[in-house]
Amino acid sequence: MSNKVGQVIRCKAAVAWEAGKPLVIEEVEVAPPQKNEVRLKILFTSLCHTDVYFWEAKGQTPVFPRIFGHEAGGIVESVGEGVTDLKPGDHVLPVFTGECRECRHCCSEESNMCDLLRINTDRGVMINDGQSRFSINGKPIYHFVGTSTFSEYTVVHVGCVAKINPAAPLDKVCVLSCGISTGLGATLNVAKPKKGQSVAVFGLGAVGLAAVEGARIAGASRIIGVDLNPNRFAEAKKFDCTEFVNPKDYDKPVQQVIADMTDGGVDRSIECTGSIQAMISAFECTHDGWGVAVLVGVPNKDDAFKTHPMNLLNERTLKGTFFGNYKPRTDIPRVVEQYMNKELDLQLEKFITHSLPFSEINKAFDYMLKGDSLRCIIRMED
Amino acid sequence: MSNKVGQVIRCKAAVAWEAGKPLVIEEVEVAPPQKNEVRLKILFTSLCHTDVYFWEAKGQTPVFPRIFGHEAGGIVESVGEGVTDLKPGDHVLPVFTGECRECRHCCSEESNMCDLLRINTDRGVMINDGQSRFSINGKPIYHFVGTSTFSEYTVVHVGCVAKINPAAPLDKVCVLSCGISTGLGATLNVAKPKKGQSVAVFGLGAVGLAAVEGARIAGASRIIGVDLNPNRFAEAKKFDCTEFVNPKDYDKPVQQVIADMTDGGVDRSIECTGSIQAMISAFECTHDGWGVAVLVGVPNKDDAFKTHPMNLLNERTLKGTFFGNYKPRTDIPRVVEQYMNKELDLQLEKFITHSLPFSEINKAFDYMLKGDSLRCIIRMED
Ligand SMILES: NC(=O)c1ccc[n+]([C@@H]2O[C@H](COP(=O)([O-])OP(=O)(O)OC[C@H]3O[C@@H](n4cnc5c(N)ncnc54)[C@H](O)[C@@H]3O)[C@@H](O)[C@H]2O)c1
Ligand SMILES: NC(=O)c1ccc[n+]([C@@H]2O[C@H](COP(=O)([O-])OP(=O)(O)OC[C@H]3O[C@@H](n4cnc5c(N)ncnc54)[C@H](O)[C@@H]3O)[C@@H](O)[C@H]2O)c1
Ligand SMILES: [Zn+2]
Ligand SMILES: [Zn+2]
Ligand SMILES: [Zn+2]
Ligand SMILES: [Zn+2]
Repeated sequence: MSNKVGQVIRCKAAVAWEAGKPLVIEEVEVAPPQKNEVRLKILFTSLCHTDVYFWEAKGQTPVFPRIFGHEAGGIVESVGEGVTDLKPGDHVLPVFTGECRECRHCCSEESNMCDLLRINTDRGVMINDGQSRFSINGKPIYHFVGTSTFSEYTVVHVGCVAKINPAAPLDKVCVLSCGISTGLGATLNVAKPKKGQSVAVFGLGAVGLAAVEGARIAGASRIIGVDLNPNRFAEAKKFDCTEFVNPKDYDKPVQQVIADMTDGGVDRSIECTGSIQAMISAFECTHDGWGVAVLVGVPNKDDAFKTHPMNLLNERTLKGTFFGNYKPRTDIPRVVEQYMNKELDLQLEKFITHSLPFSEINKAFDYMLKGDSLRCIIRMED
Repeated sequence: MSNKVGQVIRCKAAVAWEAGKPLVIEEVEVAPPQKNEVRLKILFTSLCHTDVYFWEAKGQTPVFPRIFGHEAGGIVESVGEGVTDLKPGDHVLPVFTGECRECRHCCSEESNMCDLLRINTDRGVMINDGQSRFSINGKPIYHFVGTSTFSEYTVVHVGCVAKINPAAPLDKVCVLSCGISTGLGATLNVAKPKKGQSVAVFGLGAVGLAAVEGARIAGASRIIGVDLNPNRFAEAKKFDCTEFVNPKDYDKPVQQVIADMTDGGVDRSIECTGSIQAMISAFECTHDGWGVAVLVGVPNKDDAFKTHPMNLLNERTLKGTFFGNYKPRTDIPRVVEQYMNKELDLQLEKFITHSLPFSEINKAFDYMLKGDSLRCIIRMED
């Protein structure tokens, strides 16, 4: 890295000029980090469905031109005023939701929804000055969820950066900065199946398969994968899903199918689809008395979760989670560590189905839209 | 008690011949208990709103003629075949939901929804033979939730009977057999507020005030009572409610009013109304990140609980409970004990606002319908 501290860096970024149109690799200017910000050199990034949703901008607020990307691994290039716990050269994962360490949420053991830095998909600017750090010929290009990792350099709030062991393989652990941690944590931190319990996972994308991975690690006796796309089942078998249900194969609602398979319902259920129908089914397929359902998928703006209140009164629990309830700065470095020393039997390689040079980033969108990929790693330096 | 073991007992019972019509004190025949049943002499019973709902039978399945009543204290008169853990003379509380001690629910630490004996409001007969034990001139009079305590004698499944300390004052602890335990347990066993947290309670009837009592015992810092009936607020003050909200006093939704009062929402919320609107408000008024809402009220048949899924994704928890998650045979004797030795600072007297002889039982309905009473004790022997 040439020394550009305090100066604008010119580098390549994949700019989304319009909703649903292929990204264009452009030369962008990246301003230096301001107070409580750091500038990162991104080495690897991957594509998550949340990028695709906001790029398609169907039922989501369109903010363009924008630089997407929020699953990544990189190295700190320079730090802004007031940043004391990061320095140039640190290995980091940027995270779409932050941890200021001062607000009520950060001080609560239960929440990771930092008041200052929680995910905000509509904001395209940095909170310090309400401006973007990206521009092309002086015209702003907007940020996405405070990370915008589809750029060789990006500026991120220090609260959205997890400092990790520099020995960790960034081309693998980068996927922990969103989807995999989300699914894993949804199971391990929120649904918390006990050893021997049954678990249903709705949606067998990367997030859902990470939830399956969590269920395997927790010692679930049955892991029932549910997806509308039967192609997902082959992949899911590798993750130790024990049974599969395609709602399309039945005349009755899938919650009924699962209740029939499990003598009244599963012990735990995790929804990783974003479909409101799947959210309702995931709740209603849990066993009364003790069933717990966890919602993970990001719904559309005008969706409504609807169920008969007796389903709740019958002692079911319904929860939701962002980022698997992990606090990004406090917990993610530990997850990376546990992955490295095998304390957590987490097989990240299984999630990485594709890899591309940055110049071919649009192919990653194609893979995901076709349902062919789990995670496609994009190599920024190639 | 004259010895009628194995014989029909003729005694007085308050029979509901038709929905919404005053009960009529009739002489009824009470058959002897069959296998796994006991016949109880009821000494005190009280009226709960659930009796009133099924007596009114608006939006509930009408089953008439029927003997209502499910909060009571009494003494075992005789036991049927196979009953080993109860004997004549034992002091007991009959409970509307049972505990067989063998099913998956009874074996689970989390559930009290016994497969065999859970509340069934539509069934008017005993499960052993599908018949009623009550009759008038040979014509059956139906049971209500397996208890039918508006009768001098009643027959109950052994799994629905909590054997309590004979020194316990039956005219007080009888209220623990439904409403008070329900509200208390909803707070202490399900919502579980931590010391210093804020709690909202929707509905300040006996169940809601028992939830308030639980919040006081748990050390809540603020207890916000919500009711449409402002007359409830004077009573609620005696239960250490610290603030009151009448949704009718505001233009904005009550969940917004409460969020504004509490810097984003309460830590815990307990709904004790049966109103679907209150259920939704009780959920939505909890703080994101850690808020827990517990539904207790019995909804109408075609109600739908409806909320935007983001309210869940923002890390709120929604649960429901029957009977405050207490297991009737295992837990209620202990609650009675804790009340007696003051381990639990539970002030049952505050719930008992009225008392009547059995002959005036219809007045208890009037008091409740007018919202004047919390619990009215009906003295069977007067
Ligand atoms: N809460 C969070 O913090 C968080 C973080 C990351 C991603 N997400 C969300 O999680 C969800 C999953 O992400 P992903 O990257 O795995 O997406 P993905 O598209 O790879 O996987 C989703 C899967 O769900 C399946 N599906 C869709 N509707 C279904 C239905 N009704 N029933 C059964 N299966 C259905 C699809 O066929 C697909 O296989 C998305 O909504 C994403 O936005 C949430
Ligand atoms: N889950 C269980 O195990 C269980 C057990 C007993 C009773 N219950 C139910 O609990 C509920 C309360 O019982 P109770 O005996 O205390 O009844 P109650 O009628 O004495 O009290 C209910 C209170 O709720 C108030 N209310 C009604 N709608 C409201 C609204 N939208 N917002 C605010 N307040 C509202 C009423 O004014 C009343 O004061 C009933 O639905 C009853 O059927 C449930
Ligand atoms: Zn914070
Ligand atoms: Zn993501
Ligand atoms: Zn009751
Ligand atoms: Zn049972």
